[in-house]
Parts: sequence; C-alpha cells; structure tokens
Amino acid sequence: MEELRPRKANSSPLTPPGFLERAATVYGDCTSVIYNTTTYTWSQTYRRCLQVASSIASLGIKRGHVVSVIAPNIPAMYELHFAVPMSGAILNNINTRLDARTISVLLRHSESKLVFVDHLASSLILQALSLSSRPILNALNSSSSPTMMMMVVRLSLPHHHPPLIFAARVVHCHRGIFFITVTSLLDWGVPKQPVYLWTLPMFHANGWSYPWGMAAMGATNICLRKFDGPIIFDLIKKHGVTHMCGAPVVLNMLTNSPNNEKLQNPVQILTAGAPPPAAVLFRTESLGFVVSHGYGLTETAGLVVSCAWKRKWNRLPASERARLKSRQGVKIIGMTEVDVVDAESGASVKRDGLTLGEVVFRGGSVMLGYFKDPKGTSKCMTENGWFYTGDVGVMHPDGYLEIKDRSKDVIISGGENLSSVEVESVLYTHPAINEAAVVARPDEFWGETPCAFVSFKERLKSKPSEKEIMEFCRAKLPHYMVPKTVVFKDELPKTSTGKIQKFVLRDIAKAMGSSRVSRM
Amino acid sequence: MEELRPRKANSSPLTPPGFLERAATVYGDCTSVIYNTTTYTWSQTYRRCLQVASSIASLGIKRGHVVSVIAPNIPAMYELHFAVPMSGAILNNINTRLDARTISVLLRHSESKLVFVDHLASSLILQALSLSSRPILNALNSSSSPTMMMMVVRLSLPHHHPPLIFAARVVHCHRGIFFITVTSLLDWGVPKQPVYLWTLPMFHANGWSYPWGMAAMGATNICLRKFDGPIIFDLIKKHGVTHMCGAPVVLNMLTNSPNNEKLQNPVQILTAGAPPPAAVLFRTESLGFVVSHGYGLTETAGLVVSCAWKRKWNRLPASERARLKSRQGVKIIGMTEVDVVDAESGASVKRDGLTLGEVVFRGGSVMLGYFKDPKGTSKCMTENGWFYTGDVGVMHPDGYLEIKDRSKDVIISGGENLSSVEVESVLYTHPAINEAAVVARPDEFWGETPCAFVSFKERLKSKPSEKEIMEFCRAKLPHYMVPKTVVFKDELPKTSTGKIQKFVLRDIAKAMGSSRVSRM
Repeated sequence: MEELRPRKANSSPLTPPGFLERAATVYGDCTSVIYNTTTYTWSQTYRRCLQVASSIASLGIKRGHVVSVIAPNIPAMYELHFAVPMSGAILNNINTRLDARTISVLLRHSESKLVFVDHLASSLILQALSLSSRPILNALNSSSSPTMMMMVVRLSLPHHHPPLIFAARVVHCHRGIFFITVTSLLDWGVPKQPVYLWTLPMFHANGWSYPWGMAAMGATNICLRKFDGPIIFDLIKKHGVTHMCGAPVVLNMLTNSPNNEKLQNPVQILTAGAPPPAAVLFRTESLGFVVSHGYGLTETAGLVVSCAWKRKWNRLPASERARLKSRQGVKIIGMTEVDVVDAESGASVKRDGLTLGEVVFRGGSVMLGYFKDPKGTSKCMTENGWFYTGDVGVMHPDGYLEIKDRSKDVIISGGENLSSVEVESVLYTHPAINEAAVVARPDEFWGETPCAFVSFKERLKSKPSEKEIMEFCRAKLPHYMVPKTVVFKDELPKTSTGKIQKFVLRDIAKAMGSSRVSRM
Repeated sequence: MEELRPRKANSSPLTPPGFLERAATVYGDCTSVIYNTTTYTWSQTYRRCLQVASSIASLGIKRGHVVSVIAPNIPAMYELHFAVPMSGAILNNINTRLDARTISVLLRHSESKLVFVDHLASSLILQALSLSSRPILNALNSSSSPTMMMMVVRLSLPHHHPPLIFAARVVHCHRGIFFITVTSLLDWGVPKQPVYLWTLPMFHANGWSYPWGMAAMGATNICLRKFDGPIIFDLIKKHGVTHMCGAPVVLNMLTNSPNNEKLQNPVQILTAGAPPPAAVLFRTESLGFVVSHGYGLTETAGLVVSCAWKRKWNRLPASERARLKSRQGVKIIGMTEVDVVDAESGASVKRDGLTLGEVVFRGGSVMLGYFKDPKGTSKCMTENGWFYTGDVGVMHPDGYLEIKDRSKDVIISGGENLSSVEVESVLYTHPAINEAAVVARPDEFWGETPCAFVSFKERLKSKPSEKEIMEFCRAKLPHYMVPKTVVFKDELPKTSTGKIQKFVLRDIAKAMGSSRVSRM
C-alpha cells in the first residue's frame, strides 16, 4: 500500500475563491450583487474581482502580505473577500465602529501593507494613520478604480509572509474557510440561488463564511450600508429575500418595526451571538420568519453548532418550542467533536442539562491560532487536541449543547456558579423590559452578586420599580440568582453587531463597590 | 507565523461514520431505513452498526484488514458502509452479478479476511471459495447476528494494513469519501430528511457516496432487493420518495412502466454512467421527475461533474433543453479543476464543443490509487497533478463538459476520430429503436467502421430494415459516422448497473471481420 500516498491530483489546495470562478461559469448571467440601483452579474463580479486582485498585485502586494478593509456591507466589501485572497494576500477585516486609536493599533499589529477604506470612513482612517509613527506611502483615491466608493491607502509598514486569511487577531487558513463554508451551507440547508440580505456585517467573523457560501450557491447578495426594521421589510418585499443572518438584536428590530406585516413567503433567518430570548424567537416566527439558531466564534470561522430542529417538536406548545430553539444545539457536519468539559478534571460533564463546564471543539475550521500570540494560542489549543472556547455551557440528556455564559460572565455568588444568561432570560419575560444584561457586582460577603441593567420598552404608561423587578425574578428564580441591584438605562451599550457590551456594564458595577444587601 | 502550524484541534481526521453518530443525536427517533415491513430509526441503525463493528473486531479483524461484502441494497448492506469503517477495517464491495470464478479472484486479490454475504448468494460464495487454494476458516450463519440475512465467512488469507476504504481495485481514503459525500449533497441540493429510494446499487462506486450522505441529512432510506418500473412507482407513492439515483436504464424503466402515471409530487432523480438520450430525458421529465445529470468514475468516489441547470434554459424548447441536459456539465464545488486536454501536447483543447480530448481532474475525492497496481496508478496520476480519466470529451464555449466516449470506445475511421455516443444518440431518435450501441468493426480500408447494435421496442407493427436504419442516420450524420453494419438484437448485453457492455459487442464486431461496404 506504500505507493498509495496522497498525490498532487488528490491533494490540491482547498480555497474559497474557487467558488467565484465556478459561479461565473454556472451563474454568469444571473445577478450576484444588488446595492441600491447598482446590479452586477456573477460574470461581472468575477471580472471585477480579477481586476482588483491584479490592481493589488500591481501595487507591489505579494503573497502573505496583509490587506486590511474598513467598510460596511457594500459591493466592494463583498468583492474584497475574493480579490484579496486571489491576489495571494491576507484579508484583514476591521470593524467600522472602532475609533481611530484602535484602528491605528490594529493596522500596526497586523502589519498591513494596504488598506481599503469606505469613503465615509476616510477621515477616520487618516486620523488613525496620523497616530502611527510610520508615514503613509500613498493615499490613492479610487473613484477611477473598480472598487467603488473605496479609498486605497498604501502603508509603509514592516511585513512577513503568512499565506492565510484572518479576522482580527484570529488567523484562518484557506482550507479552514473552505471547510466552514461548505458545511455551513449544508447545515443551514441553503438551496441553489437564494436571495441573501446582508444584515450581518461582513467584518464580523467574515460574515460567518457566507460571502463565500453565497458564491458557491450562486446567490443574489443584497448589499446595504445601514438598516433598520422598515428597510429590512422593504428589501424583503422588493427582492424576494429568502435568507438573512443576524444577532438577536436583528430579530428585535423586526418584531418592533412599524411595517412588520406577516411575510408573504417564509424568510430563513440564522441567528447567533447570544441565546435569543424565547419571547423574541416566538414573536419573530409569528411574522413568518423561520429562525435557526447557531453558535460559533471568530476562532471557529463561523457557526459550528446549530439547533438542528426535530419535526416532532412542531407539535409542542409555542413556549416549549422556543425554549428548545434557544439552545445552541449539536455540532454541524464539519465539526469532528463538541463537548462540555469540567475545568478541573477535563472530563465530559454529566449530560444532565445542569452541570456547567467549558465548551470545547475539534474540527477542520478551528483557527490556526492568534496572530503574534503563541502563548494565547497554546493556552486555548492544548496538546490534548481540544480548542477551549472560554464559554460555559451544559450538555442536555439529548446531546444538545446550551451555552450558559462566557467564562468571564459567570457570576460566582457564595461559591455558586451563576449563569447571567439565565437571569437575563427571566428578565426578558417581564412585559415592560426591552433589554436586559446581568453582570457581577463585587460583594464583601458573597464575593459577587448579580447586578441587572435593564432598559424599558417605549411608550410605557408606568415603569416598574427596582423592587418590583426583583420580586418578579424572585418568583421565577432561586434566591441566589435574583439580582441584588437593578439599574435602569435608556439604552444598553452595544457592539456594532448588536451584542451588549458586558465589559462596560461590568466596569459600572465594579465602580459601585460592594452591594449593601442584607444577607439572605 | 511559525507557531501557526496545524494542530490537533484543527486537524482531526475527516471520517464518514461520524455522520451516523450525529444522525443518532439529531434524528434518533426518525426512520432511517425501510425494507418491506422492517423499519429502523437512526438510533437503532447507530446501535446496530456499533454492534456489527464490535462483532467484526471480536472476530479478530484489525485496522487495515479488508472486509468484503456481496449483497444487494438490503439494510445490512447499508449498515456495513458504517460498521466496517467503524471497526477500522476496509470495506470492499463486490458486484452481486459476478460469477464464482471472478469473485474468487477478487477475494484473493483484495486479501479479504471476512466476507459478508447475502443469504441468496451463499451458494455462490461457497463455490467461489472452493476455487480458492486456501481454506475457509469459518462460515458463520448469522440468523442470530444483527446483520439480517447475512452469512459471515471468515477467511484465512494473508493481510497487511491499509487504513482505507475501497471499491473494486480503486482505493479511497476516509478524507476523500468525506469530501465527496459533503460536496455531492450540496451539488444535488439535497435538503434535510429526504426520502431516498435505493435504485442505484450500493456496490456500484459505493452508491456514489449516498449511503453516507443520507446519514448526514437524516434521510429515510428505502432499501430493496430488486426493482422494476411498477415497484418504483409503488414505492414512490407509498413512502413519498423525494430522491433517487440510477443509470439511464432506470429512466427507461420508468417511462416504459405500465403504471407510469404522472407523479403527485416531483421526485429528484440523479443519473450518470452514460449520456442519457434526449428522448428518454424528455419522457422522464414529462412524468414529473426532475432529472439531474452528472458524471464521475469509481476513481473519483462519486459524481464530480454535474450539469448545473440555468433558469434561463427553462424558456427553451424541450428538445433544446434535453440537449443541454445531456451534457455532463461543470465541476461540483468539491473538485478543484476539470479540463479536457490534448493527448499529445497535454494542453487544454479549444472550448469549441468540437475538439476531442481526454477528460482530466484534480480534487479531494480522487482516489489514492489502484490496489497493488503502482504502474496503473502512476499512469493515470502523473506528476503534473492531473488524474487522467481515459474518457474522451469536448469543452463547450460556456465551460460545460460533454463526454463523447471512453477512450477505448472511440472509433477511428479513415483517420477521423468518431464518437460512438454521437451515432447512438441519433439512433435513439428513431421511433422504433429501444436501445442502441455503436462499436468499432475492423475494416481493411478504413481501419475501423461504426457497427450498430440495436433492439426494437415491443409490439411494433413492422420493424425497419438495416438499410432503413442506415438511411435514417445518413440524413442526420456525416457520411463517415453512419454505421456500415447494423445488427438487430432482442436485448443488448448489460452490466448489473444497466450499462451496455460494449466490450461484448466489440468482440462480436471483431469476430465479424472486415466490413464489406463499398468505399464512399
């Protein structure tokens, strides 16, 4: 059998730009991208990407150089997901909502040689670059370039040669991205030629791999710069949208939209990023959206666990259906193993839906590691072959995973591990509450106590008091889980992808000092 | 970037039995297999496969030993596609229609340690083993074993350790099978929980990877021992079949079935193995089947080219649609490259739909090689990174591949390369002809001339003469392509998968000697 080694013919590299070349052959005349009144076909998108790739090369960018992008979900952003890897360079997406100082740090850290910048962010980038000790080599305005509405900035920064794609600090290889793309499509059951609305930022974990996935399926990509509920409903109607992704905040946006009439045709919506509250899930589905719920990290290149739906669950009452769907679920086909392990022993926790442990993965789309952080990489990717997520979850008896918290979000009160998410899900059932987040507040006696931050719905006749909220929780939670502090806010601080910024709230709670509650 | 090497967590082996474990979690209560009145769920199938895998191990079979199977599409056959690789052994499927002598050769050649045999084939296998110089170690009747209707034969043959799966002489690795499974599902657009009718023999190129694919999607597998048109229509109605595969002969079976009424719901049917004649395609689709056409070889583990359908083609006349669909098409997502190259220069042929060349592939599901045939392996997998298929095709201007012939089926008449398939497709348009095959007949002057073998439809009032058939062809083909000999047969010789056995016809034509036609 010795001669039966892998050979060139069966070991060719797996690379996502291949999807685009194929789309140009199969779906050449079909619409690839729509943005306001602009429309491209797959042939055009392929040609445009080839042109941009060649422009990148002509600027002296070589295999392994880093090319950064700061842009919302416009066509050029979509194209750069192909053009940059086609040129051999590494794509580095930067969150558009960051401040100049952070952007400056990221550009230096990533050793970017070139930055593509949305024209609305040009002053931001110039400010960021002015903070850098190294000079800009060129700032090329690109009205004449094929990358519409982009400014291209060439930087004189040091470099070396990593032939990979990466998002933020996380480095992925082409193979991993190919793998997550193909298996994510299968898991979500994406058919050929869907109409995909870009409500998930592409800079967020590369849009969970769907920039490449949509080329693989010959989709129509509906690009957009900004959105709210009414815009989403208008675009669904106008273009016959079939698929979209987004954080649970997008579901909230849909149910609270003034024009949220029942859909004519079902729209598949994939959500992740935080366990969606049951009530929100229920309201979204009653409008005709089919909500799928998944879970992943930037480190896994997309969603690698999803709440695979069982037909028999359709016969259950709505509240029970929502409870089941708010669980993260089972590994997708592309993941080799998912488990919840005890932090001390490393053994699998009991499959009882109660015992907390750390969520661990192994599979083809797990990152290569953190850029310039061998220590951090080794810490989460140990020799025993697991990637440690830092997320805390339970395994249910039916083999479905449920995330309870980020490790650092766990509140330890009187020695009990307490899931902030569980407290939040109770708060969300309160009729007056719009958003809720629970963090740890230091306590001299208990160590920590749960501190709730809540915002109320608009146009309420009377707002409940702190005491009323606590009593509401007391009726539904064990005593130790009831928030000992409740803070009212007009709006909770959020990331650009709609995740509540718990670290901000944690700082506020810490600043409050020890809580002065009586000992129960 | 040096520390960013692949690690255990992102390099875990890709192995198809993983689909079954997942199916047991996600689809545990759902039907996995139906066979007459027997029904299993995915939990049961998983447990049964674990039991069989453990039985195999308890018989002393170790990682890398070869386990052969001779069975039609019964549940045990399906289960062995998981149980054998789960035990670490290599699955070797043997065609049920082979004679005892050939089976004996295959068992010895493959160094099988164990054979699972369908009870109806038990006398055949005993005969085959009596031809072997080595004794049978055990013949275990298995009425008590979980592998229903199977006899297990333990052989005392030499062995060594190849950790792979293989079909006939072709050796595949787990990774390649994983890869073809996942990308075949995407290409055919198989949704979750389809109802799959097993009209393609699993022993034929492992059922084009669908034994594993159906576990990945939580399908219901309708198993059956034998079938004809009426049985297929009955099962479609009874079980709500959504998907099936088969050679073009299955399409013929459907259109000629006495109970072939129009389907209530569309059934997806994937065909390959020979270019389906346009007329057959058209008749099948008018019954409500949605025909997809693909192309692959045992060496590629399944179909790696498919005729991806363009919506705009739906507006074309039926004959034009059928002509387009009879082309093999474009690479599936899992293939890196497909090309048609000139035999001499190795360069891509012109994309003109006319220039003949050899079809070549590179991609993750190309075999490791031929078992015990390093010379054969090196011949078709050369250092330039291509796998040479031995098939002759053309590349159309739109990038779609069309197979014109097996290399050895090309007829060279007066120095002109002549595609036998092209002549056959004209013969198939004749209203009286049921089946047609064209092979080379030796000719002193021309070298070779086309010789047609045809069978007529049943219940014909008058049968056309040899001369009428030739004239029919002359009206539609260049002179040199018109058959110079026409032989009438009641039925053409076929393989178990319904392919016409051209080598048999070629022998007949050869035995005829030089054709005595006048020189044109």
